[in-house]
Amino acid sequence: MTAKVIAACRHRGIALCLIYAVLLAGCASTRGTGDLGVVIERAAGSVLIVETSAHKRLAQISGLGDLSHASVVYSRDERYAYVFGRDGGLTQVDLLRQQIVKRIVQAGNSIGGAISQDGRLVAVSNYTPGGVKVFDAHTLALVADIPALYGNSGQRSKVVGLVDAPEHRFVFALYDAGEIWVADMKDAQKPIVQKFKQVGDQPYDALITPDGRYYIAGLFGEDGLALLDLWHLDAGVKRILPGYGRGTRKMPVYKMPHLEGWAVAGDDIFIPAVGRSQVLVVDQRDWQEVGRIAVHGQPVFVMARPDGRQVWVNFAFPNNDTVQVIDVATRTIVKTITPGKTVLHMEFTPRGEQVWVSVRDADRVNVYDTNDFAMVASLPAAKPSGIFFTARAHKIGL
Amino acid sequence: MTAKVIAACRHRGIALCLIYAVLLAGCASTRGTGDLGVVIERAAGSVLIVETSAHKRLAQISGLGDLSHASVVYSRDERYAYVFGRDGGLTQVDLLRQQIVKRIVQAGNSIGGAISQDGRLVAVSNYTPGGVKVFDAHTLALVADIPALYGNSGQRSKVVGLVDAPEHRFVFALYDAGEIWVADMKDAQKPIVQKFKQVGDQPYDALITPDGRYYIAGLFGEDGLALLDLWHLDAGVKRILPGYGRGTRKMPVYKMPHLEGWAVAGDDIFIPAVGRSQVLVVDQRDWQEVGRIAVHGQPVFVMARPDGRQVWVNFAFPNNDTVQVIDVATRTIVKTITPGKTVLHMEFTPRGEQVWVSVRDADRVNVYDTNDFAMVASLPAAKPSGIFFTARAHKIGL
Repeated sequence: MTAKVIAACRHRGIALCLIYAVLLAGCASTRGTGDLGVVIERAAGSVLIVETSAHKRLAQISGLGDLSHASVVYSRDERYAYVFGRDGGLTQVDLLRQQIVKRIVQAGNSIGGAISQDGRLVAVSNYTPGGVKVFDAHTLALVADIPALYGNSGQRSKVVGLVDAPEHRFVFALYDAGEIWVADMKDAQKPIVQKFKQVGDQPYDALITPDGRYYIAGLFGEDGLALLDLWHLDAGVKRILPGYGRGTRKMPVYKMPHLEGWAVAGDDIFIPAVGRSQVLVVDQRDWQEVGRIAVHGQPVFVMARPDGRQVWVNFAFPNNDTVQVIDVATRTIVKTITPGKTVLHMEFTPRGEQVWVSVRDADRVNVYDTNDFAMVASLPAAKPSGIFFTARAHKIGL
Repeated sequence: MTAKVIAACRHRGIALCLIYAVLLAGCASTRGTGDLGVVIERAAGSVLIVETSAHKRLAQISGLGDLSHASVVYSRDERYAYVFGRDGGLTQVDLLRQQIVKRIVQAGNSIGGAISQDGRLVAVSNYTPGGVKVFDAHTLALVADIPALYGNSGQRSKVVGLVDAPEHRFVFALYDAGEIWVADMKDAQKPIVQKFKQVGDQPYDALITPDGRYYIAGLFGEDGLALLDLWHLDAGVKRILPGYGRGTRKMPVYKMPHLEGWAVAGDDIFIPAVGRSQVLVVDQRDWQEVGRIAVHGQPVFVMARPDGRQVWVNFAFPNNDTVQVIDVATRTIVKTITPGKTVLHMEFTPRGEQVWVSVRDADRVNVYDTNDFAMVASLPAAKPSGIFFTARAHKIGL
């Protein structure tokens, strides 16, 4: 760029020189990227770039397509956000130049994605055509295509619960096939896929524990959960929590809870009950339920503050105006907040001193101090849903 | 700046315009800061700014004083490094403009520091005068001074093991007094200090578990460790691992191990034995020793890969040319590497795919793939010691 300026000044004189100089000064901000984030504005197909230090909206970026159920991962330098849309759109956003770098529509219908441990590969989880596509994180060029073929007649399954795992792996579940696949991406062009079959009926979502060891898929078609220990693939997929799910009573389930939301605090995992106004406490050492906490409604996200001392819970309709805070030490509710109509998501600042809460129907994102629960800021946002901070770039399985 | 350029171009013509344009382009780079880090060059009193994505040296910054035992914390936006020197120097380095922003000498003799959970306060642990000084992270103006007074005759103790803790606290130990203090910084001007006395003889260093819950001080004057559960301050300081230390046999101890180096992997904590060629495995749930692993020499740093699957160990003289890798699942050594003479420190990339190793007497920093142990890069550095990546900005207790 400098060279260009010099050239411009030499050969074309002041006008172009000025333009370049202004461009240089104007088009990209010089700032750290560790305190940035993205808020999804679902209805508008736009995202907000936000800054958590001063609770600022930095920019609104439009033209990202259908962002229902959208999620975001970050480049390892925390400069670029990769936004996964419902319509198969994969959009790379530059948080510094505050613009879309590249946007591709790589499938007809998608549900989230992941970025590889080394940051070189971005993978997308597709419903139609069912499978996983893997792209170069810099160019968004297709690097590998993993069709979710199953059975003998060439059917393709919807893919869900795609996560990155240590040692250059992606892990995901096949909804229609009832399988979990582990893709070793050491040679990105030639993924080595290990398939675990008959893991359960209709895995609909999954999570990986923060240490990247345990992959757990929720089952829509039956009760119980499918567990894969990535340290011991030879042990295969085990079934845990046989009672977990809608149960035989089949009470109305307003929303299947997000598994991404599971909170791991010490040995305890706090998980949303399905169809019940409870949060379940499970001991990670033996995967046995060790407690139930009655809460305000059917939990959707159950998220641990980064230090694991608190667990924050939001709820499904008709209780979705409320957030409750569980104290992990006593397993009691220590605070109930009503941010407003339709609380969709929560994101903690990296060290947990504050939490951002999206309140869709209030068109606001509220920021709370997790220590005294005071609201420290509130930002306007158009029907905000997911909130994703750049610190995710440094985490496994996000 | 833009305005200045325009003015320059208008009134002084092309020459000054050019200068400004070049300045604009040259003096600060527009880039993400999530993949940056600092390498301490102890002997030269300088630091290297490095980038982990392409294994690059970006800049060398001189004039930081005595950097023996130096450590670094980062601003929450991952733009600024705060370097704590041995000579009481506190230096704020801008990783983007690649220059020193501010440098103060705030005491005669210091040993590390911490940055508050919200990123607003930087605290330094001082030997002389003994105590903790707290500074505004933006201006480095003194915000609070906490002299380490003890006994009845106004003596001041050396302060060691200073860490940040959740809920706006700093925790540190008084070497001469045998005390642990917890400073609540919610009102930064008026810290509320809770003192725990007679915790043991000469606490010489300390650590806080990654979740920010347990503060553990090593004792130089006796065997055993002092444990404080920050979730239950009322329970006071307990003694754990009564056999931990030099023991009655008093074999030669080449170096007291760094407690910062303790590795937490699941429920197991891997800790360096004192004066023995062993790594001890302790169950965090009851603080009982559950195993010992024979290693190549007296361990100095015992560090867990971020996913907890591996523990990397370096050693004291005369075995300090070697690094060993313990597989956590089997508690066996799976790899021995000899990077070169005097391996001083190791730092994992945030998601653990690589590790940077400083080899002082080879004047190099080597980068290894933690999956196949291949050396993927080697950078020249003048007598490198500590390596600190910006991802630390998002972590508790670093």
